[in-house]
Amino acid sequence: MSWVKVLGGLLGAAALLGLGVILGHFAIPKGANLPVSSDSVSRDLDPEILEAVMGQLDASRIRENLRELSRKPHLASSPRDEELVQLLLQRWRDPESGLDSAEASTYEVLLSFPSQGQPNRVTIVNSTGNVLFSCRQTEANLTGEQEGPDVVPPYAAYAPPGTPQGLLVYANRGSEDDFKELEARGIQLNGTIALTRYGGVGRGAKAVNAAKHQVAGVLVYTDPADINDGRSLPNETFPHSWHLPPSGVERGSYYEYFGDPLTPYLPANPSSFRLDPATASGFPPIPIQPIGFEDAKVLLCNLQGPSAPAAWQGALGCDYKLGPGFQPDGAYKGSQVNMSIHNRLELRNSSNVLGIIRGAVEPDRYVLYGNHRDSWVHGAVDPSSGTAVLLELSRVLGTLLKKGTWRPRRSVVFASWGAEEFGLIGSTEFTEEFFSKLQERTVAYINVDISVFANATLRAQGTPPVQSVIFSAAKQIPAPGPGGLSIYDNWIRYFNRSSSVYGLVPSLGTLGAGSDYAPFVHFLGVSSMDIAYTYDRSKTSARIYPTYHTAFDTFDYVDKFVDPGFSSHQAVAQTAGNVLLRLSDSLFLPLNVSDYSETLRSFLQAAQQDLGALLEQHNISLGPLVAAVEKFEGAAVALGQRISALQKGTFDPLQVRMLNDQLMLLERTFLNPRAFPEERYYSHVLWAPRTGPVATFPGLANACSTAMNTGPGSDAWAEVQRQLSIVVAALEGAAATLRPVADL
Amino acid sequence: MSWVKVLGGLLGAAALLGLGVILGHFAIPKGANLPVSSDSVSRDLDPEILEAVMGQLDASRIRENLRELSRKPHLASSPRDEELVQLLLQRWRDPESGLDSAEASTYEVLLSFPSQGQPNRVTIVNSTGNVLFSCRQTEANLTGEQEGPDVVPPYAAYAPPGTPQGLLVYANRGSEDDFKELEARGIQLNGTIALTRYGGVGRGAKAVNAAKHQVAGVLVYTDPADINDGRSLPNETFPHSWHLPPSGVERGSYYEYFGDPLTPYLPANPSSFRLDPATASGFPPIPIQPIGFEDAKVLLCNLQGPSAPAAWQGALGCDYKLGPGFQPDGAYKGSQVNMSIHNRLELRNSSNVLGIIRGAVEPDRYVLYGNHRDSWVHGAVDPSSGTAVLLELSRVLGTLLKKGTWRPRRSVVFASWGAEEFGLIGSTEFTEEFFSKLQERTVAYINVDISVFANATLRAQGTPPVQSVIFSAAKQIPAPGPGGLSIYDNWIRYFNRSSSVYGLVPSLGTLGAGSDYAPFVHFLGVSSMDIAYTYDRSKTSARIYPTYHTAFDTFDYVDKFVDPGFSSHQAVAQTAGNVLLRLSDSLFLPLNVSDYSETLRSFLQAAQQDLGALLEQHNISLGPLVAAVEKFEGAAVALGQRISALQKGTFDPLQVRMLNDQLMLLERTFLNPRAFPEERYYSHVLWAPRTGPVATFPGLANACSTAMNTGPGSDAWAEVQRQLSIVVAALEGAAATLRPVADL
Repeated sequence: MSWVKVLGGLLGAAALLGLGVILGHFAIPKGANLPVSSDSVSRDLDPEILEAVMGQLDASRIRENLRELSRKPHLASSPRDEELVQLLLQRWRDPESGLDSAEASTYEVLLSFPSQGQPNRVTIVNSTGNVLFSCRQTEANLTGEQEGPDVVPPYAAYAPPGTPQGLLVYANRGSEDDFKELEARGIQLNGTIALTRYGGVGRGAKAVNAAKHQVAGVLVYTDPADINDGRSLPNETFPHSWHLPPSGVERGSYYEYFGDPLTPYLPANPSSFRLDPATASGFPPIPIQPIGFEDAKVLLCNLQGPSAPAAWQGALGCDYKLGPGFQPDGAYKGSQVNMSIHNRLELRNSSNVLGIIRGAVEPDRYVLYGNHRDSWVHGAVDPSSGTAVLLELSRVLGTLLKKGTWRPRRSVVFASWGAEEFGLIGSTEFTEEFFSKLQERTVAYINVDISVFANATLRAQGTPPVQSVIFSAAKQIPAPGPGGLSIYDNWIRYFNRSSSVYGLVPSLGTLGAGSDYAPFVHFLGVSSMDIAYTYDRSKTSARIYPTYHTAFDTFDYVDKFVDPGFSSHQAVAQTAGNVLLRLSDSLFLPLNVSDYSETLRSFLQAAQQDLGALLEQHNISLGPLVAAVEKFEGAAVALGQRISALQKGTFDPLQVRMLNDQLMLLERTFLNPRAFPEERYYSHVLWAPRTGPVATFPGLANACSTAMNTGPGSDAWAEVQRQLSIVVAALEGAAATLRPVADL
Repeated sequence: MSWVKVLGGLLGAAALLGLGVILGHFAIPKGANLPVSSDSVSRDLDPEILEAVMGQLDASRIRENLRELSRKPHLASSPRDEELVQLLLQRWRDPESGLDSAEASTYEVLLSFPSQGQPNRVTIVNSTGNVLFSCRQTEANLTGEQEGPDVVPPYAAYAPPGTPQGLLVYANRGSEDDFKELEARGIQLNGTIALTRYGGVGRGAKAVNAAKHQVAGVLVYTDPADINDGRSLPNETFPHSWHLPPSGVERGSYYEYFGDPLTPYLPANPSSFRLDPATASGFPPIPIQPIGFEDAKVLLCNLQGPSAPAAWQGALGCDYKLGPGFQPDGAYKGSQVNMSIHNRLELRNSSNVLGIIRGAVEPDRYVLYGNHRDSWVHGAVDPSSGTAVLLELSRVLGTLLKKGTWRPRRSVVFASWGAEEFGLIGSTEFTEEFFSKLQERTVAYINVDISVFANATLRAQGTPPVQSVIFSAAKQIPAPGPGGLSIYDNWIRYFNRSSSVYGLVPSLGTLGAGSDYAPFVHFLGVSSMDIAYTYDRSKTSARIYPTYHTAFDTFDYVDKFVDPGFSSHQAVAQTAGNVLLRLSDSLFLPLNVSDYSETLRSFLQAAQQDLGALLEQHNISLGPLVAAVEKFEGAAVALGQRISALQKGTFDPLQVRMLNDQLMLLERTFLNPRAFPEERYYSHVLWAPRTGPVATFPGLANACSTAMNTGPGSDAWAEVQRQLSIVVAALEGAAATLRPVADL
C-alpha cells in the first residue's frame, strides 16, 4: 500500500472526524431551542474593552463639553435648560457616537423664583423710613458674565414673600443651639432680623429655628472664614484666585424635603393629584434672603451689643457683636433692617433626559448613571463638570456601540436629571414613576454631580456593597499629577480608615441626601454611589468650593483654578466609567454584600457603647440585635464561599443570574416603608437621617434621643422598642435573602 | 477491492464520524464553564409526570388522612395542634415519600379563649334576679364527640369579658342599617342586649355597629333559614342529615384585622415589640356570644313589641318581634337577658410547618401551596379536608422525588399554617418575617383551605393571572360523578360569565380576606388563588356548610354527607396538584397577565357608569384612568406577541427567565403601601376592601362614597383625586413592567 493511499485515508479519516466534531458542536443544540450562540450568556467583562474605554476618555473633550454646557446660565426650566435637553438628545442620538435610544421625559413641578418686577431688597432704614444702606441686588459683574436677564438674582428658593423689618441680631449659623445661646444671653429675638452664616445646619433649618424664637426674617451670608480661608479682598478673590468675591452669594433651595413639593410619592404628571401649595409642608416659615459678605460686613460690623462668642467670630475684620440693633455712635444708630422678599411659586415643566444602551444578555438589569443638568447660574462646576464627564463617557461607549465593537451584558441607563437644585426633583419623580420596575431590575446607581471640587484626590460615597468595585476601579487608574500613583494609592493618603477586614483602606463616605442618589438609596433601596475629585483638606478649610451656587462658577473659573488641564475631570470619568463597565459587563456582579457585615458590626458596637446603658435601665435588651448581626455575618460568609466555589467549578447562566439577584436585591431588604412615617421617602432602615453624631442604627438612635427625656412606659419608649424590632427584622430578612435560595 | 474492505472502510468512517459527533457534542462546552447538562435549563413541564401525579392521587388515602387529622379537636396552640405539627414533620421527612426538608417555625401570638373556671353564660333573669332560663354552655353530645376537655365551648374569640344585662332586642344581622331601622321604629337600644343572626356583615362588625347605638351586649345565632334551608327539627339534622343540629353553634374570630394583633407588620418573635393589648385595636367593643338556634328560639319567640320586617323573619317557627323585652303575658315577662362573658387574651406559641422541594433549575423561584392546620373543634371540613389533600399531594410528589423520578424546575414550598381561625395569624407572620425574599421570588400562592364544602362543582377564586392555569388544569381532569364531564365543563354549568375575550367561561371569584391567601395577595402582591369543591346553589341556600365551626364538623359528617367516597376531595387534589405542577415545571410561567386587561376594562366601565357623573360634577376627569387602562392593554397585547414569537423561535434560558420575571412581578406593581394607611396590610390598589357593591377600583370608589356628602374643596374630595392618581400611577407602572425590558 503506497504512502499516498495511507495519507489519503488518514486525511479522509481526519476530515470525517472533523466533520463530526462540527456537526456535534453546531448541529445538535444543547436542550430544546437553545441558541447556537448560547456562549454569549456566559460573557464576562472584557479587559480590552475596559482598557480601550479608559484610553479614549479625553480631557480636552471634557473641557470642550464644559465650555458649551456652561456658556450660558441654565437654571431649571429656563430656555437654556431646554436647549441643553436638545443638546443631550442630539449627542445621545448621534449615529456615530450615540446610544440605542434617548428620550426626554417632562414633569410639571413646583419651582420658586424671585419676582422680575419686584426685586428682593435688603436695606437699612432709619426711624423716619429713609434708606441708609441697600444690599446689592446682583453680584458684581467682574467677568462680564454676572449680568443679564438669564442670571437669576441671589434668592432663597421656596422662602415665602414678606416685608419683615426689625432690629438686626447676629445668630451665628442659625442652629437651635445658636438661638438658645442668644436667649440665654438675654438678647431679645422677638421681631428681629437674624443675620446668619452658611454652614452648620441646612439652609431651611435656619429659618425654621429662627421662627421658633419669633424672629421675623433671616439673612444668610458666607463668611470668608468658612469659604476663603479668611481671604476677602477683591484682589485676593476671583478672577484673581479661586476665592469667593465679596459680592458673591450662594443661592439654593430652602425646601426641607426632596421631590416635587406638591406630588409626594406620585409622579408629577400634568394629571397627578397636587397638594394645595398653601398647605404643602417643608417650606421656610419666614422670609429669608442670602447676601454677599461685602454687604454682611456693613451689617455685622455696625452691630451693637455684647461681643459674640469666640466660636462665632469670623473673618470680616471686625469684632462680631450680637445686637440687637446698630451701634448708637455709628451711621445706623436706631435703624432697623428691612427685607422686601417677593419670591413666587410657579408650576414649571422640567425634563429628565434618559439614554439607554440595551444589554446584550440581561437587558432587564439596569446600571444607572446620572447627573443633574440644571444650574443656578452658569454652573460650570455644579453640575456641568459632571455633565461634561457624562457626555464624554457616553460618547466613548456610544462609539464602541455604534462600531459594533461592544455591547454591555446588562442595560446601561444614562440620566440627565432636571431641577435637582430645587430639591432632587427630576430624579425623585423618575423613581416615583417607575418605582416597581426600577426596584426589581436596578443593579446599582452611579451619581456624578460635581465631578471636580478640587484636584487633590478621589472622594467616593456609597453603600457598602459598592466599596469593592470602586476600589478595583481606583487601583486600575493612574492619578493625575506627578508621582505615578494610582487613584487608589493617592486616595488613601487623603481619606483612610482602618478596616477590621482589610486593614488600612480609603474611607468610603456615606450617602446623605445631597444629590440625586437620595431617592435611589432611600426610597428604592438601590446600592448607590457618588464619585468626585476633591480638596486637600490640609490646604483649605473651605466648606465647599468658593464660588458654589454663585454667578462666578464659570468655565474660566474651572479652567484657571479648579482643574487646569482637566486631568481630574478625566480621572473621574475613568473611575466612574470603570465602575460602570464592571457593573454592566461582569458575569458575577461586583457587589460585595459581605462588606455590609463590617458596617453592621460597627453600628452595633456604637449602639452598645452609646445606647446600651440607657436601654438597660429601661430593660430593653440589644441581644436580639446582636443575634441578628451575627446571623447576617454568618450568611454573608457562607454566601462568599458559595460564590468562590461556583466560580471555580462549572455553572450554567441561570445559577449566576440567581446569585446576582441575591447580590442585587440585598439592599432592598433594608427597606421598610412603615419604619419612619414622618420622614418622607426615607425607607432604608440603615441610612435614614440620624439626629445624633454617632454612626449607628438611625431609627433606634433617634427614638432613644426622643425617649430619654420621657418616663418609663411612655409612647416614646414604645417607639424605641418598635425601632429595635424593625431593624432586627430587617437584618433577619437580609440574612434570609443571602442564605441558599432553596432555604427559608 | 473486496466488498469486505469497502464495508470495513465505511464502518470505520461511520465510527470516526460518530466519535466526532460525540466529541463535538460532549467534549466542547458551549461557552466558558457552561455545564455539560445545560439542556436541563430548558426543561419544561413533563406531561407524563403530570399524568402520573393525577393518577396517583388517591381518594382512599385522603379519607384516611382526614380520619387521623380530625380524630381529635385541634384548636390553635392546643396539645393536639402540636401533635399534628409532629405528624406533618414526620410525613414530610419520610425517607420514601417526604420532601427535601421540613421545619416548624413558631411564633408567640395573642389568642383568645373562654375561661375554664368561669364558663360564659347567657341567661334570662327576672327582676328579683332569679334565673328563668339558661342557654346551653356546650353543644348536645349527639355522636359522643361533642364533649370533653378539648372541645372548646362556643365563644366569640377576642370579644371582651363583661356581664352586661338588659332588655332583649332583635337586630336581624346587626348591620348599620339594621340598627338604624330599629331606631327609626322607635326601639330604645340604650343598654339592651341585641340578638343577631350570622350573615350579612362580619362577626366583629355586629358588635361594632351595636356599640354605636349604646347596645350593652350582643348575641349571635345561626337561623335555620340561613343554614338549613329552613329545617330545624332534630330528626332532620345531623347525625340524620348534613343539617345543623339545634344546639350547634358557630365559633369564630371577632378580630377586625388579620395577623397577630400585637405585632402589626413585624414577625411575632419572642423579642418583637408588642402593642399593649389594652390599646391594640380591632377587638369587639362590647361582649358578644354565639348561641344555638335552639336557645335563640326561646329568646326570640318570647319577645314583645312590633313584628320585625318580613326580610328579618326566619325559620324558628314564630313571628319575630323586635322587643325590647319579653311578652308581658309570657313566662319571661319583665325579665332581662344577662350575659356573663369571661374570655381571656393569652400569648401562645403557634407553629407553621414548612416543607420544601428544591427546584432543579430555578430554586430561587417559589411556588407556595398552603392550608391552615388549626380547627375550632374536630374541623373535619375546616380545615382538615384541605390538610388531608395537602398530605396526599405532598406524598405523591415526595414519592416521585425520593425515587429520583422527578424534581420540579422551581422550588415548591408546602405550608401548614397555624392559628388561621384567630385571624390568618401564621400565614401573616410568615409574610412579615420573609417579606423581601418572598416578594422577590414567589411565583404564586395556591391556597386550599376547606377543600370540599359540597360535591357539586369546582369553585376557584384568584387574581386574573391565575385564571388560565386553573382553566388548563380543570380541562384535563374528569369531574366526579356520572356524565364524564371534565371539571371545567362541569364547573361552567354552575358558575359562568360571558368574557369579552373568551366568550362563556367559568367565573373565577375574587379574593377577599377569608383565608391565608390574604397576606399573600394584599400585603406581598403575589398572584394567588383559592381552590375548593362546593354546592349546587339551586339545591341549597345555606350560607356555608351547616356544621361550620361547630362540634359537629366531624369525620363521619364528611364521610356520610359531605363527600362520600371522597371523589370531590380527589378532584380538588388533582386540580390543585395540576396547577402546582404547571407553575413549578413549565418553562414559560403559565401566568396570563393579559387577563388583567379584561378586569381593568370592567373596573373602568363600572367607574364610568357608577362614578363618572359625580366626578364630572366636581371637575374630576377619568381621562387619565382611561389612558392608563389603554396603555396597560397595549403593553399586555405586545407582550403576548413577544411570548409567542419567543416560543416559536430559539431562545436561551436567560430570555425565558427575564420574561417569566415580568409575568411573576406584574402583580407586585399594583402594590402601594401608602395607598390605604388605615387598612392594615392592604396595599394592592385593585383588591383592597370596597365599601360599595360595584366591582371597580376600590380606593377611588371608597373615597367617592366618603366625599359625596361633603362640599367641594373638602379633604375628602382631595382624597378622591389622590386615589385616582394612585391607581393611574399603578397602572402606568404595570404597563411599564410589561414593556420590552430595555425600554423605560
